[in-house]
Amino acid sequence: MSKKSKRGNSPGVGRRGFITAATVAGAAALAPPLAAAATPRAPDAVAKVAAPPTRVAEGTMSEVELAVRDLVIANRILAHENVVDAYGHVSIRHPLHPERYLLSWSRSPEQIEAGDIVEFTLGGEPAGGDQRPPYLERFIHGAIYAARPDVHAVVHAHSVEVLPFSISATKLRPVIHDGAFIGAEVPVWDIAEKFGHETDLLVSNMAQGRDLARRLGGNQMALMRGHGFVAAAASLYEVVRLAVYAPRNAHVLQAALLMGGKIKPLSKGEITARVEGPTLQPNTAAAQRAWAYWAQRAGVADLLPPRPTK
Amino acid sequence: MSKKSKRGNSPGVGRRGFITAATVAGAAALAPPLAAAATPRAPDAVAKVAAPPTRVAEGTMSEVELAVRDLVIANRILAHENVVDAYGHVSIRHPLHPERYLLSWSRSPEQIEAGDIVEFTLGGEPAGGDQRPPYLERFIHGAIYAARPDVHAVVHAHSVEVLPFSISATKLRPVIHDGAFIGAEVPVWDIAEKFGHETDLLVSNMAQGRDLARRLGGNQMALMRGHGFVAAAASLYEVVRLAVYAPRNAHVLQAALLMGGKIKPLSKGEITARVEGPTLQPNTAAAQRAWAYWAQRAGVADLLPPRPTK
Amino acid sequence: MSKKSKRGNSPGVGRRGFITAATVAGAAALAPPLAAAATPRAPDAVAKVAAPPTRVAEGTMSEVELAVRDLVIANRILAHENVVDAYGHVSIRHPLHPERYLLSWSRSPEQIEAGDIVEFTLGGEPAGGDQRPPYLERFIHGAIYAARPDVHAVVHAHSVEVLPFSISATKLRPVIHDGAFIGAEVPVWDIAEKFGHETDLLVSNMAQGRDLARRLGGNQMALMRGHGFVAAAASLYEVVRLAVYAPRNAHVLQAALLMGGKIKPLSKGEITARVEGPTLQPNTAAAQRAWAYWAQRAGVADLLPPRPTK
Amino acid sequence: MSKKSKRGNSPGVGRRGFITAATVAGAAALAPPLAAAATPRAPDAVAKVAAPPTRVAEGTMSEVELAVRDLVIANRILAHENVVDAYGHVSIRHPLHPERYLLSWSRSPEQIEAGDIVEFTLGGEPAGGDQRPPYLERFIHGAIYAARPDVHAVVHAHSVEVLPFSISATKLRPVIHDGAFIGAEVPVWDIAEKFGHETDLLVSNMAQGRDLARRLGGNQMALMRGHGFVAAAASLYEVVRLAVYAPRNAHVLQAALLMGGKIKPLSKGEITARVEGPTLQPNTAAAQRAWAYWAQRAGVADLLPPRPTK
Repeated sequence: MSKKSKRGNSPGVGRRGFITAATVAGAAALAPPLAAAATPRAPDAVAKVAAPPTRVAEGTMSEVELAVRDLVIANRILAHENVVDAYGHVSIRHPLHPERYLLSWSRSPEQIEAGDIVEFTLGGEPAGGDQRPPYLERFIHGAIYAARPDVHAVVHAHSVEVLPFSISATKLRPVIHDGAFIGAEVPVWDIAEKFGHETDLLVSNMAQGRDLARRLGGNQMALMRGHGFVAAAASLYEVVRLAVYAPRNAHVLQAALLMGGKIKPLSKGEITARVEGPTLQPNTAAAQRAWAYWAQRAGVADLLPPRPTK
Repeated sequence: MSKKSKRGNSPGVGRRGFITAATVAGAAALAPPLAAAATPRAPDAVAKVAAPPTRVAEGTMSEVELAVRDLVIANRILAHENVVDAYGHVSIRHPLHPERYLLSWSRSPEQIEAGDIVEFTLGGEPAGGDQRPPYLERFIHGAIYAARPDVHAVVHAHSVEVLPFSISATKLRPVIHDGAFIGAEVPVWDIAEKFGHETDLLVSNMAQGRDLARRLGGNQMALMRGHGFVAAAASLYEVVRLAVYAPRNAHVLQAALLMGGKIKPLSKGEITARVEGPTLQPNTAAAQRAWAYWAQRAGVADLLPPRPTK
Repeated sequence: MSKKSKRGNSPGVGRRGFITAATVAGAAALAPPLAAAATPRAPDAVAKVAAPPTRVAEGTMSEVELAVRDLVIANRILAHENVVDAYGHVSIRHPLHPERYLLSWSRSPEQIEAGDIVEFTLGGEPAGGDQRPPYLERFIHGAIYAARPDVHAVVHAHSVEVLPFSISATKLRPVIHDGAFIGAEVPVWDIAEKFGHETDLLVSNMAQGRDLARRLGGNQMALMRGHGFVAAAASLYEVVRLAVYAPRNAHVLQAALLMGGKIKPLSKGEITARVEGPTLQPNTAAAQRAWAYWAQRAGVADLLPPRPTK
Repeated sequence: MSKKSKRGNSPGVGRRGFITAATVAGAAALAPPLAAAATPRAPDAVAKVAAPPTRVAEGTMSEVELAVRDLVIANRILAHENVVDAYGHVSIRHPLHPERYLLSWSRSPEQIEAGDIVEFTLGGEPAGGDQRPPYLERFIHGAIYAARPDVHAVVHAHSVEVLPFSISATKLRPVIHDGAFIGAEVPVWDIAEKFGHETDLLVSNMAQGRDLARRLGGNQMALMRGHGFVAAAASLYEVVRLAVYAPRNAHVLQAALLMGGKIKPLSKGEITARVEGPTLQPNTAAAQRAWAYWAQRAGVADLLPPRPTK
């Protein structure tokens, strides 16, 4: 049975939390105006947020406001932790409309603020008519959300530690405990297989996005030959953690390989225990600790909820 | 004769100093109320510190206040020097109660302040009933303090330079003078040997902690397969120094190995001279220099005692 | 047909934009006094800028002022991204006088301000009589501008990731999509071939500069044995991008080579699609995004034009 | 003929300049009271500086004040450029008393201020009775100054890029132009050869210092097995440049070696042209540029003399 089927097909069930997408049904119950498909839309998610219809968590913020806030934090974290530079992006599935996702217009992650977040259809069109230029490769996100109802957050990046495995015969696999999140299998997608040897390597349309999503399959991560990787997870916290630790896992694996001799990778059981087990879920103290730490380093600690008191 | 037995079994004898745990007997003499086991306890060490019964050193701070202050500095140093990130932790044996240790609740080391330090029993329970979530792997600390009366400070971390040796057939050994502190032998503990191939690799209970402590034996450092390392020393300064230089030693060893040919490691006599000799003990100017430098870089120079005047 | 001839021999045609050299003809039409060769010159470009004769773009700045501003930004970016240190330099062809180029006097790129930019003849003389000491290796720039009418910006640097390929039998080639800009061929120039084994390796006169330009040929980049590289492009944005990503490409290539086995480089068609295709030209949102990001990181965001509004 | 004899035995002849030791004779002529051996001494160089007898350069500073200022800058540069950390040190021969040298007491280079500089005899005693603890390894400096009249500045450090060559059969040699300053030969000194296998690897007395100086011979740099390196040069600028670029040269050499195949090192003639030629002497614009850049990065730009105006 694949990981995907294990997780079930209901988007976000049981994953409410500080950085988790809400269930569609629950959110709709709380926010009927927003859930109504025919509601006229403001130019982008942020404009919409300006008149929040409901307050579901953390005091006075709506589900969508929380999602936007967390997405800003995720962008800043990935930039500060050197997962992305001028390029690379992170998205979140819309917490109320599973057939939409939230993603910045064409800005670098380190510079993104709430007002930069745009709502897209799964086909990659700005749902509210936003006129600012979008990322060329936004199709990656929609294609994965369409293929994977269990996925609520997607990262695309070009980390130099991961890239050697995208052009090498050596397979990337998890060898450290925090690397387990990449999953037991990390397939490599080569755009040239289906789209020939004259592309600019960018995922520039839905056909390419869908082909990439097919190669990703039910896995957490796929490498893109000579280009980078995609990571997909059930929550924003999980996809950020994966993207932060995948390069370290790649670094350790490569270093061990270069010293020669046999190496000990994680076992299937260990990978499953990390990914599926209770200790590292997004609502645990261990997860919250990392999110708070990364956010502070990235200069956005002021966006976090207050920490627990003794 | 092992290093452990050489150092003797009296905790902290002769190691008083700016970052050294006090002897139990001496401290008890100075601070009887705190040494009395039946004394009711405030929720955590810091609350207790708020009403210090005695002032033993550096003007107006109690033994416990000094320990807490030094532990905060140690956390910040390890974070700034990239030994720990969101994860990893450092503890100190309680200066008055050798059957207790001081450790933060579940926060990242870079964010830790005095108010975050909690007192734990060797079994891993918060001694004063602190309600904040603890580190999942606190059992590492108690198990080592229980097995090693000579140890007063413990670090657990996941440095990427050290990790390749935890999954490789190549042994980590000291090759640079500041690497001597890792000791002549660095055993590798594989959690799967005793606890099977389906753990999440975390040391989640005392049984696992004790098994790790057994593998550590009388050594200063043990690798944890696919996970990280533990370091144990007679004082906070020593364990921090070990944790800072172990990754550099690993880096140099690996680089030399990759160039091929025979390499020259440190001799047993050189390792002993570094670890046991007089020049690098915690009370020397050389040690104080490093502590002051690391603390300044980590942004906590204001916590340091004043420097000597000419 | 070489890339050079494909791009045509008219300097800058069709490349107007925020960081692009203007066409000579167009600029001359707008700025006749500056285009007149007999015009008396102020001591340097900046003094001249102080009395701008025309305002052609972005409000109130002249073509030359814009070029100087962008060159300051480029210097700061290359310093901040670790492409250059105390040494290394970047120039731009004069936007109105193709037989001149703009380059700082002998300062480190991180410290350069508008007042440091000097106008040089292609032979390497300060056109306005500036008395400050010039870079010893300024001849690199003039020789390339003379040989390559399609080139409007040149970088010379000593990146440690690129240098191993300058002394090794292993050829540098593009393996990642952002590395495509180095081009399919990266020739290595060894100063000793023509100038003997007793030089200080610096390009100290026009004869050496011309020899280097010949080895560069119609390519984007050439390595200089034991010394560094030159990069040449049609605009400042393009040469900065090349210089930023060439080291990362070199890093990834080397890492993949060390793991052994066959590696997959970019195909010729992929390289061409990246360099010639529409998606990554300097006037695209993707290009502007990187420039804005790099400039902000380098501390010169205040020099940028305002960003688009939704 | 060795480099040493080429440079002559008169300390500092012809090397006056912004970071150069003055000739003894000339300085003595300007500052007779300080040159008189019987003059009572203040506790350290800085106290002495407080009542400067002569003003020889850069306005109102004495030779000694200038030396102290430059030594502070050098310390900060080496710390900021990651050549030294808590440990490692740099000294300058006393500008008026060639049988003395200036060096900090036991502080980390990043923290050193003018008041920390102490005057030492070549035997390693504080000349003015300073009571602060000195560096354990100060004997390195005196032994080299005694053996090498041409040397006016010495660095001892433990750079991780250089260390692998100290324990490997692979020889460190210059392969990049800025690496030429390490010289054609870089001998390796193993303390165990003469002092046995039970030392703590530190140069703890003059006998060890002299043995190291003998191995250094007439070269610019020697590696110390499992410990670090010493660098010796005719001026502070030169020794800092050597110490900054030696690690980069080591990094490039190692990377090229790992890729396999034949590599091209610098020729003897190229090394000589770099070290002896006119273009890179301390009084050139190219040298001043680096010093100003490094000092600004290290946060001590305010200590620099003003830069040239056009």
